Amino acid sequence: MTLLTTLPTRSPDRLRPVLREIAPPDPYRFPVDPWRLIDTSPATDHLGSIETLFGLGNGYLGMRDNPPEGRMAHAHGTYINGFHETWDIQHAENAHAFARVGQTIVNVPDAKVMKLYVDDEPIRIDTADLEHFERVLDFKNGTSTRSLIWRTPAGKRIQMTSTRVVSLEHRHLALMRLELTMLDGRAPIVVSSQLLNRQDGADEYHHQFAALGEGVDPRQSRRFDRRVLEAVDQLHLRDLGGGTIALGYRTIRSHMRIAAACRHDITSDSDVSVDTQIEADRAKVVLSFDLEAGQRITIDKWVSYHTAREVPCGELIDRCIRTLTRAAEQGPDVLFDTQRRWLDHFWSVADIEVAGDDRAQQAIRWNLFQLVQATAATDEQGVAAKGVSAGGYDGHYFWDTEVYVIPFLAHTAPQSARKLLRFRHGLLDAARRRARELNQVGALYPWRTINGEEASAYYAAGTAQYHINAAVAYAIERYVRATNDLDFLFKEGVEVLAETARLWHDLGFISRDGAVHIHRVTGPDEYTTVVNDNLYTNVMARFNLRFAAQTVRALAEHDPEGFDILSRRIGLTSAEADAWDRTADLIFLPYDEVLGIHPQDDSFLNLEPWDFDGTPKEKYPLLLNFHPLVIYRHQVLKQADVVLAMYLRGEHFDLDQKRRNFDYYDPITTGDSSLSACVQSIAASEVGYNALAWRYFQQSLFLDLTDAHGNTADGVHIANAGGVWSALVHGFGGVRFTDDAIVVNPALPDAWSELRLRFIHRGSRCSITIDAHGWTLIVHDGPGVCVRSTAGTFVVHAGTRHRESL
Amino acid sequence: MTLLTTLPTRSPDRLRPVLREIAPPDPYRFPVDPWRLIDTSPATDHLGSIETLFGLGNGYLGMRDNPPEGRMAHAHGTYINGFHETWDIQHAENAHAFARVGQTIVNVPDAKVMKLYVDDEPIRIDTADLEHFERVLDFKNGTSTRSLIWRTPAGKRIQMTSTRVVSLEHRHLALMRLELTMLDGRAPIVVSSQLLNRQDGADEYHHQFAALGEGVDPRQSRRFDRRVLEAVDQLHLRDLGGGTIALGYRTIRSHMRIAAACRHDITSDSDVSVDTQIEADRAKVVLSFDLEAGQRITIDKWVSYHTAREVPCGELIDRCIRTLTRAAEQGPDVLFDTQRRWLDHFWSVADIEVAGDDRAQQAIRWNLFQLVQATAATDEQGVAAKGVSAGGYDGHYFWDTEVYVIPFLAHTAPQSARKLLRFRHGLLDAARRRARELNQVGALYPWRTINGEEASAYYAAGTAQYHINAAVAYAIERYVRATNDLDFLFKEGVEVLAETARLWHDLGFISRDGAVHIHRVTGPDEYTTVVNDNLYTNVMARFNLRFAAQTVRALAEHDPEGFDILSRRIGLTSAEADAWDRTADLIFLPYDEVLGIHPQDDSFLNLEPWDFDGTPKEKYPLLLNFHPLVIYRHQVLKQADVVLAMYLRGEHFDLDQKRRNFDYYDPITTGDSSLSACVQSIAASEVGYNALAWRYFQQSLFLDLTDAHGNTADGVHIANAGGVWSALVHGFGGVRFTDDAIVVNPALPDAWSELRLRFIHRGSRCSITIDAHGWTLIVHDGPGVCVRSTAGTFVVHAGTRHRESL
Repeated sequence: MTLLTTLPTRSPDRLRPVLREIAPPDPYRFPVDPWRLIDTSPATDHLGSIETLFGLGNGYLGMRDNPPEGRMAHAHGTYINGFHETWDIQHAENAHAFARVGQTIVNVPDAKVMKLYVDDEPIRIDTADLEHFERVLDFKNGTSTRSLIWRTPAGKRIQMTSTRVVSLEHRHLALMRLELTMLDGRAPIVVSSQLLNRQDGADEYHHQFAALGEGVDPRQSRRFDRRVLEAVDQLHLRDLGGGTIALGYRTIRSHMRIAAACRHDITSDSDVSVDTQIEADRAKVVLSFDLEAGQRITIDKWVSYHTAREVPCGELIDRCIRTLTRAAEQGPDVLFDTQRRWLDHFWSVADIEVAGDDRAQQAIRWNLFQLVQATAATDEQGVAAKGVSAGGYDGHYFWDTEVYVIPFLAHTAPQSARKLLRFRHGLLDAARRRARELNQVGALYPWRTINGEEASAYYAAGTAQYHINAAVAYAIERYVRATNDLDFLFKEGVEVLAETARLWHDLGFISRDGAVHIHRVTGPDEYTTVVNDNLYTNVMARFNLRFAAQTVRALAEHDPEGFDILSRRIGLTSAEADAWDRTADLIFLPYDEVLGIHPQDDSFLNLEPWDFDGTPKEKYPLLLNFHPLVIYRHQVLKQADVVLAMYLRGEHFDLDQKRRNFDYYDPITTGDSSLSACVQSIAASEVGYNALAWRYFQQSLFLDLTDAHGNTADGVHIANAGGVWSALVHGFGGVRFTDDAIVVNPALPDAWSELRLRFIHRGSRCSITIDAHGWTLIVHDGPGVCVRSTAGTFVVHAGTRHRESL
Repeated sequence: MTLLTTLPTRSPDRLRPVLREIAPPDPYRFPVDPWRLIDTSPATDHLGSIETLFGLGNGYLGMRDNPPEGRMAHAHGTYINGFHETWDIQHAENAHAFARVGQTIVNVPDAKVMKLYVDDEPIRIDTADLEHFERVLDFKNGTSTRSLIWRTPAGKRIQMTSTRVVSLEHRHLALMRLELTMLDGRAPIVVSSQLLNRQDGADEYHHQFAALGEGVDPRQSRRFDRRVLEAVDQLHLRDLGGGTIALGYRTIRSHMRIAAACRHDITSDSDVSVDTQIEADRAKVVLSFDLEAGQRITIDKWVSYHTAREVPCGELIDRCIRTLTRAAEQGPDVLFDTQRRWLDHFWSVADIEVAGDDRAQQAIRWNLFQLVQATAATDEQGVAAKGVSAGGYDGHYFWDTEVYVIPFLAHTAPQSARKLLRFRHGLLDAARRRARELNQVGALYPWRTINGEEASAYYAAGTAQYHINAAVAYAIERYVRATNDLDFLFKEGVEVLAETARLWHDLGFISRDGAVHIHRVTGPDEYTTVVNDNLYTNVMARFNLRFAAQTVRALAEHDPEGFDILSRRIGLTSAEADAWDRTADLIFLPYDEVLGIHPQDDSFLNLEPWDFDGTPKEKYPLLLNFHPLVIYRHQVLKQADVVLAMYLRGEHFDLDQKRRNFDYYDPITTGDSSLSACVQSIAASEVGYNALAWRYFQQSLFLDLTDAHGNTADGVHIANAGGVWSALVHGFGGVRFTDDAIVVNPALPDAWSELRLRFIHRGSRCSITIDAHGWTLIVHDGPGVCVRSTAGTFVVHAGTRHRESL
């Protein structure tokens, strides 16, 4: 029996993250460099994280940083966004409308393998005698490089440099370059360059996975115990001569098709013999040659993937060949140059600079680069929780995209944001069906999905998170505020807003007290599930209803014809929009007069406090160490959703209120969710807890780079990377994009002498430079932006600047 | 948006079951007979129910009423209580301490098959030309009989009578008698008598099951897609000569062992040739003979099953043979006679008679007979939800035993009740481990289990039902009140009470209001899950704590040595017992002053009303037609657990309170649970709603006999059968067994002129006869009982009677 005689005290010493006080982040193991992530250790004890941290991707195609020699991996991973297999979810105890269609991203054929044999000896990094080793991920060039000098068992030295590019410009294209230079001696050398379908083979990853206890960690990817890819076309294996090979497959259940092809261009000081072998799941180009001291060979392995639902594999292979031919004809330098120019543009609109903290600078750019790699070419797919960096969370799309990634894209790559929102619009029919299954009208987006169908097999922390509807509405608001793209808003946007609003309107229930209540839903905090009147959900539902009503009215006013068309198609009326507003006005927001805070839900404050003092470090994250009922029974949070509500709908809380809520929830937030630290940092900045904001920012900034959650091996926490951007822009920068103006209230960390933010707002390329004395907004080009401060409202035109002192 | 401006009205017309108004029960299809269930139709359209309704069992061994010819079955089922296979529960999304070990009762080798061929033509009931057909389950003789006259394709008439006994006295023994009489013509006849291991073969049941959508109905049994029984011993197949055959197996995962053996004794007017064949999963004794008109043959197939964990199959087969030899030497008449005498005794202590309603009389005896068949020889196993009548609910033990069956046993077969409670005591170590897994001290019994480990894969309606702990305490109270068995109470009982009380004490939490709260548990009503302060749970936890404290103190007083031993073993002190009492005193019981009712939990009254008018009949049971979140969001009940609390702990509610609660909850109770109707009937009787009590009683009484829930094919609803007894004794009889006396407040249904209850109380065999004018208690033998009424407290001695007028 725990006896609670007093409430948790809210003394200043409780204002601390309860876990992992990482300031400074001790485990950071990389040499500091502002534009590159560098690793000089060939040690294999952090293999899983390293593969993730140094991996390449373009939002469509992702490759983990597995070595060309094809051994020693945590997971040999190559992923195509949205390319997934389906399976029947087997519920241990089934119930009506439980999710039925499991969806898992497929580990597609691996083109990274270029096995090296010198004197017939293979290289193994863990045992090789290495004179030099360096691994580099280059944020300016968009390349990853591994270079080493190997003293072979015969005592000869050979330099091996592997350079990879996954093209940000041409999403189907990648290049694996292998350069070998014989430093002394002479040796026969074989490079076996492969295209390898590993999908149903046990590999190191799977072994490790099994050792962990399969399925115990729900954040990992599902493993198939059957084939996933099958050959269906006669032409699925192709040797096109001259070292060009291709494989084509179809996924067995979801019937998606993929082709992968490689072409090899060789520049060599010696003669090379080429032997091509094609088997069912392995195509090989074996290059054999001799190198003498000083001789050098460069093998450019061009790689292309094409995927589709309806196109035969043979046709997809043809597409791959066309991609390869064009790229090879242009040559590698064009690819390197295009990649560099793509990134030059990106950094010119999105770079964030800090003065006086090179390690933070490096980490910030690594995080922004990850956002690029996850979103550059999504082609109307979503952004998976791990981007294309690994198969964690099965490659599913969550609300992460809308709440954590789209704000960044809206201000750095608006077209990418638009594509993601159009993708959500494309899932509307599936969301309408899902709402019917849950006995509601309107649309209910699935908590996790690839193909639009609910894939969450644990409804309490899945389907019950109805708030995903409002997350989509929020992303639309952010995008439209950033772009004023009324074309999108009045075509796709309004339909999404209307159908999500309908769900809320239907779900809400006017109780005895005359207020609208929303029952049995789960907020973002997954340590408290299936509750009544979750504050976050109610605040966001209210926003969704009002925004939808306002948009419908705006459409009727600005585009009566468009309104008529939509109205006929989905039966929409102005009266319905008015009803949404009335419902919004009645939505109940729980408030505790005694504590002066917003309870997380209607019974949260009655729960037992968690015994933090009695919980040793190894019991975190709680979800892996306590039965859900035990967690749900206590006042303990995975992430503080009241605090998130105050960030996303800040206008509804005054500063005192924000501080009281933060004071209550922060000490009971474990941060077991990787979505937590960035939001706590932003909120702490806003309420003036600068030291705490800094500590949370450090957690967020180095979350993957220090493997703070212990699962970076399963992929980059993309939402957190977006959170790093948000913490910089909205937290330290204090920038808010309101309907009509930019508002800036910076809180520069003591450790930094200057912070420079870059972003695009309504077509204007802007930067804001913050120092100890004030801030300066420069509009570099575009139509200009409006700024509001205590001094008034100003329009800042292109080529001019606005300075405010603090 | 549903708008609730007023509360559900409580006008008298709402005092109705919302579903299935079955009074009278129209689908009742059986000729009325007070001592037998009779079916004269060979139709196969209710095959599943018929197999269940006419099945035989003795609590250890159960056989569905499959025909000897071995065809045409919904499920060829033979079950041994507790004989199960285990499997790894695969959670679609796993979490810490989710149930891991699936347990499923095994369909054991089938000894019922005796295939008949006349002129080499097999008989098929669905197409056979039958002159006569009758199926009888005899409650006095304990037999099932099927007799028919078949006009064969060749036009000859043969009489076939199959009589079966599953011995209530010798649990390992059964007899399948087949009598054939040639009425005209002459024919060669073959009877292929088999012992058939069907366990991994597809059969009709499985086909039908798959067609239903496997696993959609969580009440059905799991199907294995692998072998369950394997041969492990050299001697597992045996032809012992003279028509005696045996098979032995081990379950593959749980390593339980089983042997089944048959012996054939033949009485014939003609010569019979016997051919025995033994294969891996099928042993056959093929009997060939000719019958002329008027000739007759009787084949007595003696059947024995033995099971064990550690004993080799060869040894188990030897045990079967010894059982068969002894039984056959005594002969069938001894078996028939023993069976009859066993039941004579049972009916003499347990029969319940109604005057003026033969159909009810028949149905009452059928239900009591089912209780006998489920409990006669459980040998310290539990009583599964379906007894041994089928594999529904995987053969698991729930709280059904304790709340619905033990009260009956305590007053009709106290030794059986004692065995069941000792079985629960035997599961205490597993329950202690489960409590640890759930982060609690003490013991937490599994919601569903065979081997003591939690097997509920859906925690919200499983593990969260902590109230099972109190159900065990309740059963101990009922048993001890009925028997005064202090030997049990002070040995096993007190330990169970102490460990369950510890769980409650630890789980409770003193909140700001100074009261003890119990959060995030599920009460018996599975349409509302994982709530705070479920009234039923809190009332029962309070009882459990107080009863444990009182028992510990009684032990310390009456048996200081026993107390010391227990105290040393489990660290128990008197101070701990005092702490339980203090906690019990502080337990919060939700109460709504406005409505004057007890809310089912802390937020129940805030939920949206269910739209009963908009829910068509085919949408029931709701659990098969609505997502759990939809159900949980509404004020709709599977069973009314506040009402159940008022029945089990009636002393804590006055009559007005009971009526107000009943008035509120009854109209929103679907009765989708088969545990609902009997309790509603008892409560309605108590609050004076006699017509309603009658209607609910009819639902309960005919629940299986009319297949009212549509799943009698999956087995007899044993708890409901216990509920029929409770509704008669506690409802219409108004009998309450208090600590010190019997109290009688009858409410005789108008349809009955007299109701006579029989029971044993503290060693005295009693009967109470209720008529329109009063009631008479007779003590037939034993030490006498104490009766309390408004007129005072009386001791009624053996051979005397006490009459009270109404």
